[in-house]
Amino acid sequence: MNPNMRALMAPRSVAVVGATERPGASAGYVMKNLVGMGYAGRILPIHPRETSVFGYAAAPSLSALDTPPDCVVIGIAAAHVPAIIDEAGRNGTRAAVVLASGFGETGEEGAALEAELASIARDHDMALCGPNCLGLVSLGQGAALYSSTLDPAMKRGRLALISASGASAIALGNSGRVGVSALVSMGNAPVTGLGDYLRWFAQDPETDVIGLVIEGIRDPESIADAMKDVHAAGKTAIALRVGRSAEGQRATAAHTGALAGASEAQAAFLARTGIVDLPDMDSFIEAAVLCSGGGRPRPGPVAVIGVSGGGVAHVTDIASEVGLPLATFATETVERLQELLPGFATPQNPLDVTGAAFGDPKVYSGALDALDADPDVAVTVAAQDAPPGLSSAIADEYSGIAGAVAAYGGETPVVAISNLSAGVHGDVARAYGDAIRLQGTRAALTAIARCQEAARTVSWPGETGDAALDAAPGSIGEAEARGMFEAIGLAGPIGEIAATAAEAADIAARIGGKVVMKIASPDIAHKTEAGGVALGVAADQAAETFERIMASARAYAPDARLDGVLVQEMVTGGVEALLGLVNHAPFGLGLVVGAGGTLTEIMQDAAFDLLPVDVERAEAMLSRTRLSKLLYGARGAAPADRAALVNAMVALSEFGLRHSKAIEAVDLNPVAVLPEGKGVRLLDSLILRA
Amino acid sequence: MNPNMRALMAPRSVAVVGATERPGASAGYVMKNLVGMGYAGRILPIHPRETSVFGYAAAPSLSALDTPPDCVVIGIAAAHVPAIIDEAGRNGTRAAVVLASGFGETGEEGAALEAELASIARDHDMALCGPNCLGLVSLGQGAALYSSTLDPAMKRGRLALISASGASAIALGNSGRVGVSALVSMGNAPVTGLGDYLRWFAQDPETDVIGLVIEGIRDPESIADAMKDVHAAGKTAIALRVGRSAEGQRATAAHTGALAGASEAQAAFLARTGIVDLPDMDSFIEAAVLCSGGGRPRPGPVAVIGVSGGGVAHVTDIASEVGLPLATFATETVERLQELLPGFATPQNPLDVTGAAFGDPKVYSGALDALDADPDVAVTVAAQDAPPGLSSAIADEYSGIAGAVAAYGGETPVVAISNLSAGVHGDVARAYGDAIRLQGTRAALTAIARCQEAARTVSWPGETGDAALDAAPGSIGEAEARGMFEAIGLAGPIGEIAATAAEAADIAARIGGKVVMKIASPDIAHKTEAGGVALGVAADQAAETFERIMASARAYAPDARLDGVLVQEMVTGGVEALLGLVNHAPFGLGLVVGAGGTLTEIMQDAAFDLLPVDVERAEAMLSRTRLSKLLYGARGAAPADRAALVNAMVALSEFGLRHSKAIEAVDLNPVAVLPEGKGVRLLDSLILRA
Repeated sequence: MNPNMRALMAPRSVAVVGATERPGASAGYVMKNLVGMGYAGRILPIHPRETSVFGYAAAPSLSALDTPPDCVVIGIAAAHVPAIIDEAGRNGTRAAVVLASGFGETGEEGAALEAELASIARDHDMALCGPNCLGLVSLGQGAALYSSTLDPAMKRGRLALISASGASAIALGNSGRVGVSALVSMGNAPVTGLGDYLRWFAQDPETDVIGLVIEGIRDPESIADAMKDVHAAGKTAIALRVGRSAEGQRATAAHTGALAGASEAQAAFLARTGIVDLPDMDSFIEAAVLCSGGGRPRPGPVAVIGVSGGGVAHVTDIASEVGLPLATFATETVERLQELLPGFATPQNPLDVTGAAFGDPKVYSGALDALDADPDVAVTVAAQDAPPGLSSAIADEYSGIAGAVAAYGGETPVVAISNLSAGVHGDVARAYGDAIRLQGTRAALTAIARCQEAARTVSWPGETGDAALDAAPGSIGEAEARGMFEAIGLAGPIGEIAATAAEAADIAARIGGKVVMKIASPDIAHKTEAGGVALGVAADQAAETFERIMASARAYAPDARLDGVLVQEMVTGGVEALLGLVNHAPFGLGLVVGAGGTLTEIMQDAAFDLLPVDVERAEAMLSRTRLSKLLYGARGAAPADRAALVNAMVALSEFGLRHSKAIEAVDLNPVAVLPEGKGVRLLDSLILRA
Repeated sequence: MNPNMRALMAPRSVAVVGATERPGASAGYVMKNLVGMGYAGRILPIHPRETSVFGYAAAPSLSALDTPPDCVVIGIAAAHVPAIIDEAGRNGTRAAVVLASGFGETGEEGAALEAELASIARDHDMALCGPNCLGLVSLGQGAALYSSTLDPAMKRGRLALISASGASAIALGNSGRVGVSALVSMGNAPVTGLGDYLRWFAQDPETDVIGLVIEGIRDPESIADAMKDVHAAGKTAIALRVGRSAEGQRATAAHTGALAGASEAQAAFLARTGIVDLPDMDSFIEAAVLCSGGGRPRPGPVAVIGVSGGGVAHVTDIASEVGLPLATFATETVERLQELLPGFATPQNPLDVTGAAFGDPKVYSGALDALDADPDVAVTVAAQDAPPGLSSAIADEYSGIAGAVAAYGGETPVVAISNLSAGVHGDVARAYGDAIRLQGTRAALTAIARCQEAARTVSWPGETGDAALDAAPGSIGEAEARGMFEAIGLAGPIGEIAATAAEAADIAARIGGKVVMKIASPDIAHKTEAGGVALGVAADQAAETFERIMASARAYAPDARLDGVLVQEMVTGGVEALLGLVNHAPFGLGLVVGAGGTLTEIMQDAAFDLLPVDVERAEAMLSRTRLSKLLYGARGAAPADRAALVNAMVALSEFGLRHSKAIEAVDLNPVAVLPEGKGVRLLDSLILRA
């Protein structure tokens, strides 16, 4: 841990430049927050004329202080900021928060000012929050270096929020659903980035869950590296990506000028680094609740239990919509439930234990224990509404069930959910005790599913090389590209050049089936025109066809050099796939696979992952495509050579890594995937240079 | 309105059979609810031995009452219910609520008992709520014929809930988000169904929105008919379908034994009758809030406005995910916003008016007015978080914006939403005044989108006939089916039988291009084996081919009757579609269209609608398929004859309606859609009889 991060996140002294009691001044808000949130370190207002600000003695400048503060918060206009940062750095301060806007987000001039600021901060090895931000708060220390009013009664907890959007940080930090350990409004972040904050919170003992509100990812390598620390600490990082849609991106671009990587590349990056990707604020909050305390449900199917058939059916519908599979109960589980439940209940998943559980919560407890013992159940979802609008007397009827959940002591996690995002009556909430309690079926189940499927490892980036492409500049045509792909085992149709008729017959016989024959000459561009192409030639006609082609070519271009005739397999049948590489800055190259050929546009079928793609990832990608079904043999067709396609994907990934700097895109379409055992054939290829 | 519905929903007197003070008795709960909810009518407990129940004089039997009550609530065991219903009916009572379970949901014996009960109720022309239900509550009258504890302080409002699931009704009725006018737990509902309740609430002056929690639809015609009244009254019906997924259906089937129509047919039915189909409880609640007061947003794109770039981007992402398009601002709007907003704001949609609006809410008001004037904006979504966890002092900063929304007086509806489903701080909520305020981005935008797109008319069912199919019993083979479809203008390949070689040449020339020739003989089943088929015959070879085929056939089967040779166009190119009819009880036949032929399984591309399908609906169906793209000409192919396919869909719909009772399914696959102007050709067809 760089000590400057400690100076930023847990400063023992803070100077506030521009501190004033004048209403509306950002540095004034910071002063009030420091006082209000009970900051225990030294508060040092800096103002050229004031002598005291909110009762704290003010100094005229940073240089006038006897000891350099750990951190300076700068609340003055953009133009004056670089000089102040320099002054602070020269004095030995190693952290700063710059609140002002007017930097990179406003255009060229602002960008230059930001570059200057960043350069100075780097020269002094300073951590820098901002510019163009609300600042940050470490709640444990009361270090509220924050320019928007904070509530001293703000709910404390184990979620650290790092947000590109100040407003989102406020909304998520004050939801009332989950307490926070820290808030960071990152701003433009040219110096201290997401990776640095992640690394800080990985070691912060007050934080279990790190929540990221992302508008664009600019330092992926640093984040990936930091995520190793997060996983090692057994913590969870969750993310809400704002501006995923084309239209949404327009809004964030206007807002911060951030160039977001394409949404699919962002999603792949989060998956590769084990950051849980949540689709909306509600599921983000529920995921934070789910993982606060350090737990995270293991992957696997769920059991759904409730006292209402309609209620559990609703939960099951939405589980199916968010991709959360239901467990199949073991025979022992069914028998145990049969003994436990009234005769009219059905011991199946989803499990309606019926209203009997109201009268006798032991029925509910017993069912939870039965599900705990079932090997197929990874998580039990206990669905129970007890809406906040109930009177206390009526809410009391539900507390028995909540109590059964609270008293549960099994291994399999039980997550209580209410269908209504409004949650449950306060009395019932209390009866749940320390049980994990989520709200809103869709948000809750989405949070469970996404947390389950997120990796706990980092598998990005791969080792890249910067080998140049051995070809002329510009985009690389089929012939040259074909040679490159052949070199990595990704070949076009099998074939050889025959110099004589006898050789042609021999090659055709070896290839088997019908062949294509083409004049081989560097001097004949239009082979068909020259009578130099024959399709569907049987082996016993190859010799004769050789002579005919050579004669035609000689007649067509008497001066041409003729190398002979290319005898090539005729690729028919097979499934047409597309394979490709595409560069998504700042993540580098990713691999695309999907249905190719004439189906490309219609099926819009493409799975994407960042490099490197190994066999396992290639299989996982394929299984997300419709192409996958085609490969298994649609409408009675023979199964295609899936393994060969997977190998081709891996080879292409390795090719991409080797030439990572040289490639903008590769388009292999169609790739014919022949019947099992026959391999793949590259029928068309194109490389676009970086 | 049948007067028995008034007796059920607004009874002036209620007898409670089985009334007792014994804890746990369902009739006891009814007594307590009637008292607690302030029922103003006469309460008449009936008990063989008790003389007074909760202070009300009890009678020993219904027949002992001086005047027959409007309604009887029966809280005794299933076996005794039919006799009581009969007694009530004979005395002149026209409505009953039967709480007990043990009827159709339990098996054959129960079903018989339910049939008996239903038959008696019908004989006496009685409205019947239940059996196997919690009963119903009309809050205006305090008529709480309900066997689960109700809170006297329950929030009153303009939502009537009709629920298949008692638990869901309680959850939705006590969400705290929306007040209710009535709750109906329908139970098995063999007599009084969803249609009857819809008709009642269509005329109920206390109800604006009718909320349905549906586990299965059994009386679609009655519901469709009632929905005409609902639309005429300017009210909105919203639905939550429980058990949509295969696994969810298992739960409801276990629960009520209801046989739900397939989910796609249910969805089509709701769309055809103008019932808003919501995917979860949260969006159901938000839709109820949105439409309470009678309003419903008109279809069209939305404007998104907020004070945070990240916030509006998030809303925009989710708008795009739920299918809510963003408006394109007119030049005038952009200019107006430019004048109004600070220079660093960008006047685009989504619109970030920036924090300037905090200091000066007039900026916000002005922007709302500018959006109101924009002709493309159907709804303005004002996105603003002000989380409940804020202190009052801080919440106050948000009240200015809320006030601007409250003061808005334009024509275009403004819907305030908070990204968090937890909603906003109470002070801010109050500042919004009467403005429509929704919670949770996904639920809110889903509610807006679904309410916008729902029809305000009923277009189902069509006029059906029960014409039999003129064919032998069983499934109908290709030859016979082809004849039927030819009769409705849905022909296979063009062709004629030639009796002579000269005729064959003539026909082939008329057809143009290459033709297929096949021996025409009722006695030759295996035409290819008989040498009776020739493909790709040019017109100038048709005469010669005729002679060859006739000779082969004669040699193969000397005794066969030969009618000549079928000369038929060879259908190549064109786009392969599938068309079909499928019977989804209880809705009858629906039409399916999608990508056909070899693409059928891979693309899984099918749009469904119930009959009747007219040109407009056929077009709408097509536009939901990937086939649609194929028809426009993928990868440089010529556009296909879309109009001919639409006509075929309409013809098939008419065919289906005419033979509605006779058909279980029709499978036309592939249907070749030829290039524009060339029509469609039926290449294979199958009819499955009902």
